[in-house]
Amino acid sequence: MDAKKILRHFKDGKISAEKTLTKLKVLPFNNLGYANIDYHRSLRQGACETIYAESKTCRQILGIVSDMNAKGLKNIIVTRVSPEKIKYLTAKKVNLKYFPQAKLAVVNFKEIKNKKGSVVIVSGGTSDIPVCEEAAVTAEVLGSRVTRLYDVGVAGVHRLLSNAETLANARVVIAVAGMEGALASVVGGVVGCPVIGVPTSVGYGASFGGVSALLSMLNSCANGVSVVNIDNGFGAGVIAHRINKTESAK
Amino acid sequence: MDAKKILRHFKDGKISAEKTLTKLKVLPFNNLGYANIDYHRSLRQGACETIYAESKTCRQILGIVSDMNAKGLKNIIVTRVSPEKIKYLTAKKVNLKYFPQAKLAVVNFKEIKNKKGSVVIVSGGTSDIPVCEEAAVTAEVLGSRVTRLYDVGVAGVHRLLSNAETLANARVVIAVAGMEGALASVVGGVVGCPVIGVPTSVGYGASFGGVSALLSMLNSCANGVSVVNIDNGFGAGVIAHRINKTESAK
Amino acid sequence: MDAKKILRHFKDGKISAEKTLTKLKVLPFNNLGYANIDYHRSLRQGACETIYAESKTCRQILGIVSDMNAKGLKNIIVTRVSPEKIKYLTAKKVNLKYFPQAKLAVVNFKEIKNKKGSVVIVSGGTSDIPVCEEAAVTAEVLGSRVTRLYDVGVAGVHRLLSNAETLANARVVIAVAGMEGALASVVGGVVGCPVIGVPTSVGYGASFGGVSALLSMLNSCANGVSVVNIDNGFGAGVIAHRINKTESAK
Amino acid sequence: MDAKKILRHFKDGKISAEKTLTKLKVLPFNNLGYANIDYHRSLRQGACETIYAESKTCRQILGIVSDMNAKGLKNIIVTRVSPEKIKYLTAKKVNLKYFPQAKLAVVNFKEIKNKKGSVVIVSGGTSDIPVCEEAAVTAEVLGSRVTRLYDVGVAGVHRLLSNAETLANARVVIAVAGMEGALASVVGGVVGCPVIGVPTSVGYGASFGGVSALLSMLNSCANGVSVVNIDNGFGAGVIAHRINKTESAK
Amino acid sequence: MDAKKILRHFKDGKISAEKTLTKLKVLPFNNLGYANIDYHRSLRQGACETIYAESKTCRQILGIVSDMNAKGLKNIIVTRVSPEKIKYLTAKKVNLKYFPQAKLAVVNFKEIKNKKGSVVIVSGGTSDIPVCEEAAVTAEVLGSRVTRLYDVGVAGVHRLLSNAETLANARVVIAVAGMEGALASVVGGVVGCPVIGVPTSVGYGASFGGVSALLSMLNSCANGVSVVNIDNGFGAGVIAHRINKTESAK
Amino acid sequence: MDAKKILRHFKDGKISAEKTLTKLKVLPFNNLGYANIDYHRSLRQGACETIYAESKTCRQILGIVSDMNAKGLKNIIVTRVSPEKIKYLTAKKVNLKYFPQAKLAVVNFKEIKNKKGSVVIVSGGTSDIPVCEEAAVTAEVLGSRVTRLYDVGVAGVHRLLSNAETLANARVVIAVAGMEGALASVVGGVVGCPVIGVPTSVGYGASFGGVSALLSMLNSCANGVSVVNIDNGFGAGVIAHRINKTESAK
Amino acid sequence: MDAKKILRHFKDGKISAEKTLTKLKVLPFNNLGYANIDYHRSLRQGACETIYAESKTCRQILGIVSDMNAKGLKNIIVTRVSPEKIKYLTAKKVNLKYFPQAKLAVVNFKEIKNKKGSVVIVSGGTSDIPVCEEAAVTAEVLGSRVTRLYDVGVAGVHRLLSNAETLANARVVIAVAGMEGALASVVGGVVGCPVIGVPTSVGYGASFGGVSALLSMLNSCANGVSVVNIDNGFGAGVIAHRINKTESAK
Amino acid sequence: MDAKKILRHFKDGKISAEKTLTKLKVLPFNNLGYANIDYHRSLRQGACETIYAESKTCRQILGIVSDMNAKGLKNIIVTRVSPEKIKYLTAKKVNLKYFPQAKLAVVNFKEIKNKKGSVVIVSGGTSDIPVCEEAAVTAEVLGSRVTRLYDVGVAGVHRLLSNAETLANARVVIAVAGMEGALASVVGGVVGCPVIGVPTSVGYGASFGGVSALLSMLNSCANGVSVVNIDNGFGAGVIAHRINKTESAK
Repeated sequence: MDAKKILRHFKDGKISAEKTLTKLKVLPFNNLGYANIDYHRSLRQGACETIYAESKTCRQILGIVSDMNAKGLKNIIVTRVSPEKIKYLTAKKVNLKYFPQAKLAVVNFKEIKNKKGSVVIVSGGTSDIPVCEEAAVTAEVLGSRVTRLYDVGVAGVHRLLSNAETLANARVVIAVAGMEGALASVVGGVVGCPVIGVPTSVGYGASFGGVSALLSMLNSCANGVSVVNIDNGFGAGVIAHRINKTESAK
Repeated sequence: MDAKKILRHFKDGKISAEKTLTKLKVLPFNNLGYANIDYHRSLRQGACETIYAESKTCRQILGIVSDMNAKGLKNIIVTRVSPEKIKYLTAKKVNLKYFPQAKLAVVNFKEIKNKKGSVVIVSGGTSDIPVCEEAAVTAEVLGSRVTRLYDVGVAGVHRLLSNAETLANARVVIAVAGMEGALASVVGGVVGCPVIGVPTSVGYGASFGGVSALLSMLNSCANGVSVVNIDNGFGAGVIAHRINKTESAK
Repeated sequence: MDAKKILRHFKDGKISAEKTLTKLKVLPFNNLGYANIDYHRSLRQGACETIYAESKTCRQILGIVSDMNAKGLKNIIVTRVSPEKIKYLTAKKVNLKYFPQAKLAVVNFKEIKNKKGSVVIVSGGTSDIPVCEEAAVTAEVLGSRVTRLYDVGVAGVHRLLSNAETLANARVVIAVAGMEGALASVVGGVVGCPVIGVPTSVGYGASFGGVSALLSMLNSCANGVSVVNIDNGFGAGVIAHRINKTESAK
Repeated sequence: MDAKKILRHFKDGKISAEKTLTKLKVLPFNNLGYANIDYHRSLRQGACETIYAESKTCRQILGIVSDMNAKGLKNIIVTRVSPEKIKYLTAKKVNLKYFPQAKLAVVNFKEIKNKKGSVVIVSGGTSDIPVCEEAAVTAEVLGSRVTRLYDVGVAGVHRLLSNAETLANARVVIAVAGMEGALASVVGGVVGCPVIGVPTSVGYGASFGGVSALLSMLNSCANGVSVVNIDNGFGAGVIAHRINKTESAK
Repeated sequence: MDAKKILRHFKDGKISAEKTLTKLKVLPFNNLGYANIDYHRSLRQGACETIYAESKTCRQILGIVSDMNAKGLKNIIVTRVSPEKIKYLTAKKVNLKYFPQAKLAVVNFKEIKNKKGSVVIVSGGTSDIPVCEEAAVTAEVLGSRVTRLYDVGVAGVHRLLSNAETLANARVVIAVAGMEGALASVVGGVVGCPVIGVPTSVGYGASFGGVSALLSMLNSCANGVSVVNIDNGFGAGVIAHRINKTESAK
Repeated sequence: MDAKKILRHFKDGKISAEKTLTKLKVLPFNNLGYANIDYHRSLRQGACETIYAESKTCRQILGIVSDMNAKGLKNIIVTRVSPEKIKYLTAKKVNLKYFPQAKLAVVNFKEIKNKKGSVVIVSGGTSDIPVCEEAAVTAEVLGSRVTRLYDVGVAGVHRLLSNAETLANARVVIAVAGMEGALASVVGGVVGCPVIGVPTSVGYGASFGGVSALLSMLNSCANGVSVVNIDNGFGAGVIAHRINKTESAK
Repeated sequence: MDAKKILRHFKDGKISAEKTLTKLKVLPFNNLGYANIDYHRSLRQGACETIYAESKTCRQILGIVSDMNAKGLKNIIVTRVSPEKIKYLTAKKVNLKYFPQAKLAVVNFKEIKNKKGSVVIVSGGTSDIPVCEEAAVTAEVLGSRVTRLYDVGVAGVHRLLSNAETLANARVVIAVAGMEGALASVVGGVVGCPVIGVPTSVGYGASFGGVSALLSMLNSCANGVSVVNIDNGFGAGVIAHRINKTESAK
Repeated sequence: MDAKKILRHFKDGKISAEKTLTKLKVLPFNNLGYANIDYHRSLRQGACETIYAESKTCRQILGIVSDMNAKGLKNIIVTRVSPEKIKYLTAKKVNLKYFPQAKLAVVNFKEIKNKKGSVVIVSGGTSDIPVCEEAAVTAEVLGSRVTRLYDVGVAGVHRLLSNAETLANARVVIAVAGMEGALASVVGGVVGCPVIGVPTSVGYGASFGGVSALLSMLNSCANGVSVVNIDNGFGAGVIAHRINKTESAK
């Protein structure tokens, strides 16, 4: 660890006490002016920083990606990135793989061969698929094995129950649903592993852009359900991977 | 009908044109000053006016009940009436039967012997029972046969599915649930008759006093679900009875 | 029923106990990957699955419709479908009838000749007509006789009252209104049959996209009013048909 | 006017320019430390300051009342004052008349004999009466003639319509209603004078303490309806009186 | 009145009792199918029906206008009408005058020469002018004299106070403001006539499209302020005119 | 498994096909009328049903507990149970251990000796401790080893950072905070394991009973944070235990 | 600074590199188990930690106070502390001064003699005084000179304007108001120094416990206004003091 | 001051008492009809009026700017002005400098050479930069020295802490953040000067356009944080400058 090196320099009299203290606080990140890339994160959290592209300009995204690329990082995830921005990045010779349903790109994509464990993603309806795919691709890029069970909403609960075996073998389930979001509760009542609810903005009127599904999932009468932000497939994918990669407690 | 009698009086010259027009507008109701009892309602809607006791004083309730009693009305429903108010009314010799779980009283109670049809009431949990009973007693007093299936919430969906036959034979189902209110959707996906969702204020935190369940039910992905106000068991009982008493269309 | 056939196979030793249990759980549906079509629904609920087109791609709609068509289904309802999507489907030789005001298409449309009963649809204003028509066409395609009373809002309550006879003969009334949504209460005070309130998003400012009308209808002081989601004409049409088709209780 | 007197003093050299400017800004009010009584208001607005008692201590109320009493003011209105506070004030020899339904007291009450014009107050139900009475007593103390039409809600709209003549002769109508608050719209569709809607907190569940009625009234499809705060009978009474006392335009 | 004529016909035996009762309920309106034009309104309320154009099609507007035109009506107000719709109507030879700032058209415009009384309209800022003009033109078309005081918001309260005389002579004031909507309270503290607050959707962030201003005005600590819907200049204009035209009470 | 036994009975001709199908649907639960105890849950989810005591009567709780006790279940968790209810249960000879800070009781408490893994619970302030303890006791009763780090809120972020090592060794962290709920994000930025945010209702004014903290946690800019309902320490404890007990993926 | 001492120990070989790094992170605070007292804060922020008593038990408050007292700290502020808790603390011999209007106690109170600068606190009404006093006492205990201008709300704006000179000389103004909260904007339009708006929960109905005033202040059209939480007089007092104590920039 | 001149004229008999009183109320502003430019403001508040361009037409902006220009004003700030409007103004020969990131223009720009003090602006992420720049440019134009620390959000709190020295030397800090807005609390816990929180609308789903960040900042557990409206960089810049320019109290 670098911190020890700084201490050694201090002991050797190369730097003053003041400087030492200051340096110890300065962990590795790179300041591009508009962005402060946190290279310490991969040490701390096992995955490099992700780029949320929605409110960044093409040039900002390119700048950040280039800086990370120069460090030799692989599998840099860029979320909520439109086809237009992908065109720009590709034209600038950025090496990436685009997943259009998930609106997610992976720079310096290197597929993980032996994916592990079992993340199961269930969706209420066809319209929830983009959010599902954001979660699925994220978990896969991070190294998890993913099973997709789409359009198994509670209006025909037998479609879900017919997958009981798959659900029983899951290490973690992601339940993605809009409208009334009841899917999370029904799944939560069936499985014994953690369930991550992802409310989606699918619906109209009193669905209030996903609020109805969000509240449903937060109030789930089934144990074991926790919730992420509306349409936050990426977040669910990260958490599911973290749970899935957990090793036996000592 | 009285209106024709008024017209006859006019034709016979007993009353002027002006008076006739005014009288025709005045349908039967009795003005107690603080309440305008609508005696026309039983003609119009097949059931006499109901008394919502929550924000009325003991004396107001007594006054209304006495006036209706003097007209010889039976089975006058008083909703949301506390045991204290019941004590007052009983002391004043009001002839009533009290249903404490439902917090509902029936003045001049006359049980309907051959109740008809099939109203099924399902509840998510034990805590929803007061609302269920308000619905059940209301429908029974009006003449409907009622089946109660309590504590069959979606966290253990097999409890509901084990009653598939009872549900299949229902003419109308009332689904009562708090928290995430997913029960209405699951029931709505199983039956082919109308479903009335009653969100309850059971829950805490982001249930917001029943709002979460209310939104869930309004956004139900299952067809056939309509919704009443939070904790409105009485309203659900009335609607269920109206549907249940429907006769074959000609 | 197929379930018995599976049991017979088990008894005959053709399949193991495990397989039997699994098969019994798998009810008839067809998995297209992005959609799980529930062919069991018409048995369970008397009408085949409906396609909510708003958040589906043209190709997804075509895929689902084709699969259902191949099963020989008639009168498949597609809701919230734009003229652009209709163009695509028509170009792909899908046999459909489009109702532009209702933004609703019926695939393999086969008009029901002797429609039955009486569903009355009242609207507050001219702007509510698209929602009304979604309800009306839905109920008609399912087999109900529908009467339309449009623009009879409470700002001129005599327009509504002049239709008293039509209302008195209704088996169920759908009250469609935006702004303050008072229509449902006034109708609910006049008729003795069930009333389904449909709040619409017509209005501005503090109408909050239909919330004002929704709350009004949920808080109706008139008995007999239940409510569906904002702008949910389709849902109201389904429920009204279910009530309307109810036969005399035995 | 005093301001001229100050100017005269300045001209006469009695006070400096600075002092003059300061004095001119200081209009008549009396600073009690915790309250700044605005004695200019009766000149400006035709009625002395009102005391909102709800969040004031007994001693603060007494202090303000005594100060106003010392100026010889009559008909000082104290709103939202509990029986306990009335007991305290009476014990302190404050000369007042208490209206318990309205929870309103008038200090140095002097009944206005020939009340003028016509303010009509209509209420949806019996439970709205306290708010109605706050409005009624306020308007009467200020000098308006008031007609009360209580419990004429829209669930039995004929009760309202039977009072068409009284409504037609009103100079201003106050419509008081909780729950869905539809009364204001129906009244607004019937009369040609200004209508003041007062939503009340009567109701439960999705009435949200009067919000449902408030939104209804704000979104009224009838012209001529303006709205005051939930349960604000006093405010409605003041406005109604101001409209009622309007004289013919020159 | 026609009702008497109907009674006469009944007395003369020309029509049956049943028919008489039915006819008496049918007040004058014209059913275009998509719209029920209420010709009784001008009798009842002293002004003909207004057309809210925002959610109506060009053809619907034309149909309604033509029907009203055929009855010889003057000064038909069409609100929230876009320049595009005006082009269509003009091309169809509709005789109208357009007020572009107010987005309001008057069909068969006939200016009222001797406007009466005094309606004063104050606005918080330049951005509120469209709403102000909707109110101003409405009141003027109905016959009121209007004074405009624009951009006198509370951030420089001396701009308002410098118009004290104009305000003191008003018979009614319309206070139009977005953002925090404090103008209504300050005006309400200055004048003795009724004040109508019109919150506007001007602002951003936590103004929530006018909700902040709406709440401010509803909670005004000044007496005499009532409120209309966000951006509802038309409604404020109607109410102001009704107050302004009030004649001395007898 | 019982299902196979049922199939055998069928094969042996002891029961008909119809009966077999019905029985297969009926999974093990016990209907007490007011409660349907789900004894299948411990098979399905590894823990027996929990009793949410808040809205249940003493008698209902006693009935459920007795029924579960008769089945010989250990470590039955009763949440949100007041000291008064504990007194009642103790008087009725229920064998339980009460955790007063957590307001949680465990019936037939049998401490798990070798707790495993590492669940770390961090709290923003002293006032959040009851919710923390509900989570902590739940996880411990289920078998997890728990470390408590209380009052390490972000207003003094060094208090949190000084526990970096404990956090780094956690298998899952529960972050409990009211007010602005920023703790979850700061923790989420530090650790690499899953973080469960529990917003609490601690705060006043615009904290809206926990909504502010809830929204903060849902919008966390740190990856790896999922959220449960406001004050839902129990739910967080269950999920944390499920994650903590996860074994290495095969 | 201690950090340097730790470094010296490391250099002297007394502690290892690992230990050094850990110790450097551990800044001075004292862990009582239920509370982590941040003794570093007075270095960092110029004032010791404050105790928010509302949701703490008597014993917790006593524990924290005793620990701080043992360190010899003066002027420890305890906010939102009820008279009952004060009784307990006094009985336990805690040396404190209680300000009952502000519900604020100061332990080891030592009045600051030469208070500096000028903080002006203006309030809308008498009912806002408790919040004002919380702000005033806080600022005074910290060393600021405070001027109180109470009950100068916008319904009589001359009362505020008559204090123009006091306002002009303020270094910072705290504007405290409930209901519509317009006071902040009016003050903000008059002064040139920073204004801190404190919305209060005074009001009823659509004031929503202070939300109306909060939104008003956030949307102020006057420059220079920032806002704290509803009823947060303490926070306003701290900020005002920090601004007031600012010295001339170099 | 002009007021004294008016008094002198009165004393000299040049103007009457009435005229004097009127004139004294009329402070210097210029009425353009659609705008009332407040030229008194620069006297009162040390900076001339600012133009909020978002909801003004090009012609209105030009009119106001021209009028102010004619008075010889420098550094007139125009906020929220789009490039299109800038094109128009430039074509009309308005002398301005445009800051595109901040969407802010300065008419008659005259850079202040020796900026003073220290305003530090920290942002949570890259997407918050436009709001930061609005604040930064505003403060600089008014004369403050500004330091920018961008993308130092709490998901990597070491990035913020590494700037401890810069923060410690700030006279005021502006903390700009969207999503959960935790940055303000963390900064508030670190510095001893006033902190102004600016929530931004960056985020999605349950961020509700900045509401989540707004609530977080209002509920900050750190002392010293006050808040402005969502995205209100300009307001924060003004307040920060006012604090920064404060001189030592006498």
